[in-house]
Amino acid sequence: MPQTLGYAAQSADADLAPFSFDRREPGLDEVLIEITHCGVCHSDLHQARNDWKNTAYPCIPGHEIIGTVAAVGASVTRFKAGDTVGVGCLVDSCGSCGHCDEGLEQYCDTGATGTYNGRLPDGGHTYGGYSQKITVKESFVLRIPDTLDRAGAAPLLCAGITTYSPLRHWKVGPGQRVGVVGLGGLGHMAVKLARAMGAEVVLFTTSPGKVEDAKRLGASEVVISKDRDQMKAQRNTLDFILNTVAASHNLNPYLDCLKVNGSLVLVGVPEEAHPSPSVGRLLSKRRSIAGSAIGGIAETQEMLDFCAEHGIHSDIEMIAMADINQAYERMLKSDVKYRFVIDMATLG
Amino acid sequence: MPQTLGYAAQSADADLAPFSFDRREPGLDEVLIEITHCGVCHSDLHQARNDWKNTAYPCIPGHEIIGTVAAVGASVTRFKAGDTVGVGCLVDSCGSCGHCDEGLEQYCDTGATGTYNGRLPDGGHTYGGYSQKITVKESFVLRIPDTLDRAGAAPLLCAGITTYSPLRHWKVGPGQRVGVVGLGGLGHMAVKLARAMGAEVVLFTTSPGKVEDAKRLGASEVVISKDRDQMKAQRNTLDFILNTVAASHNLNPYLDCLKVNGSLVLVGVPEEAHPSPSVGRLLSKRRSIAGSAIGGIAETQEMLDFCAEHGIHSDIEMIAMADINQAYERMLKSDVKYRFVIDMATLG
Repeated sequence: MPQTLGYAAQSADADLAPFSFDRREPGLDEVLIEITHCGVCHSDLHQARNDWKNTAYPCIPGHEIIGTVAAVGASVTRFKAGDTVGVGCLVDSCGSCGHCDEGLEQYCDTGATGTYNGRLPDGGHTYGGYSQKITVKESFVLRIPDTLDRAGAAPLLCAGITTYSPLRHWKVGPGQRVGVVGLGGLGHMAVKLARAMGAEVVLFTTSPGKVEDAKRLGASEVVISKDRDQMKAQRNTLDFILNTVAASHNLNPYLDCLKVNGSLVLVGVPEEAHPSPSVGRLLSKRRSIAGSAIGGIAETQEMLDFCAEHGIHSDIEMIAMADINQAYERMLKSDVKYRFVIDMATLG
Repeated sequence: MPQTLGYAAQSADADLAPFSFDRREPGLDEVLIEITHCGVCHSDLHQARNDWKNTAYPCIPGHEIIGTVAAVGASVTRFKAGDTVGVGCLVDSCGSCGHCDEGLEQYCDTGATGTYNGRLPDGGHTYGGYSQKITVKESFVLRIPDTLDRAGAAPLLCAGITTYSPLRHWKVGPGQRVGVVGLGGLGHMAVKLARAMGAEVVLFTTSPGKVEDAKRLGASEVVISKDRDQMKAQRNTLDFILNTVAASHNLNPYLDCLKVNGSLVLVGVPEEAHPSPSVGRLLSKRRSIAGSAIGGIAETQEMLDFCAEHGIHSDIEMIAMADINQAYERMLKSDVKYRFVIDMATLG
């Protein structure tokens, strides 16, 4: 059994700390990966601190994993030792329901298995990417194109696909004006991706300090969302809005910005409900509010290839594994541009 | 000027009562219609009683109008005296914005003109169909197919198109399970239309007394929405839900019924907001909540032709014009199956 060092939370109020455990030997259809980088998602913090009241301990977060194939099972055909690979939010699903058949593993009828805190048949749970190694079924391993930088590619596995999937599903493209709400880990990816898809991007932020950065990332306009006049100027002008802000807020000013048939898509679940959105604003222009969750495996590969083609990475700040608790505190203050990535060489 | 007798409310708390006024002579592109039937929509009551705080008095409601062409302007080509015609919720729009160009007059950029309480350039307002005559621009007059019964066709002009338009827009058809919430004027049309489009229809009602009627109208299943077990049995089974209930209610149990990619479409605006819908329920299955408002003129004609082809009428109760105030009281108690239609021959 490959012994591994990781960083785990042992309880909701404990800091993450070194933790030794065994990964399983790769089965016939599995890949053993030496992890070199792991992105730090806000969900990692929620899970470690039991914010969702469902955490199994010890909890090893991390689902933006980049690494090198160390060994493969006998029936693995797509990967060999030395390949650069990725693992995102999912490591398994039933593989036989209609959604799995369609490549929508994230909507698997029986529930896909999360990369961390996912329930295992033996009663245990999965351990994520804050660790040296991981063993994953071949069909959930992604190929990382050579031209992508490993560290900058790590956040694509969650922040990238979570924004790419709705942009594709709602057919964002040239000739469209697309709004992105919030400039954080998800928002900065959404700006880059929507721009690369050919749309004109309008970034909404509460922070005047982010205006220049948003433009650098690809936004053609930046709207300070607290400014009523600026919001008013955007009314009925957007085809689509991707709202990456999970904190409870009033959705109506964004509905107002949508044209007829426009959609406001939410990718974050607020702890406290958003104020009830105005039905009149939906009716008067046949607008929609929808939700979207990460993306399927085939679409994640498509996104990685798209990013390679367009030279898109996440803007990151590298940290050592031992700095993770401090990084969480900074993340809570949105003090990161725009994603922490753990250099796994600093572990062990 | 064609003198006309109608029924008007002179203030928010006054009963409707006889009122004489002049309709304009038909202009070059206009049609003068002798009204024979007018359906009674819940909006009529809201408008007459100033529930929306925007009523101009005197208020003559009525936007489910059927009649006979009495005279046409010189440039009218599609209608001649003696034709059976209809007028719905709209009598004018800018005619030049993108939405008007697409036949989406209901979403006209400058606001379409309502059949009643619509603002006129001279500062006056439009008078609706509770009257003997009306003069309407040719492009807003609908052809009523010969096989449709006049009285049963009247409610198609609002209740029919309001349900037909979203069913078409969201591509309801064979192989789909479609939910309809509420069995009133709109709901009973939605059941008939969705069934005729080839879908399997599940009707949700709070009234056990409506089960048999819903099945007669075309529902294959009827769910008593207060019954948790019955609601639970529908989880993840519906492709689309048309919610015709305007009273504030919890939308989450209906979101639960939708499959992945399913849409819950609202066609009524509640006076008090619905409780805020669960974002988690949207995300976990990429579900949407949307709104839809009536329909455009071309689509209304398509709906009338569809109803003629499929032998679809509204289930109605005929009343005399003088009974309108009593009918309003019964409508407030949902004591109508499923639409009152005024026999305009009883006026004058």
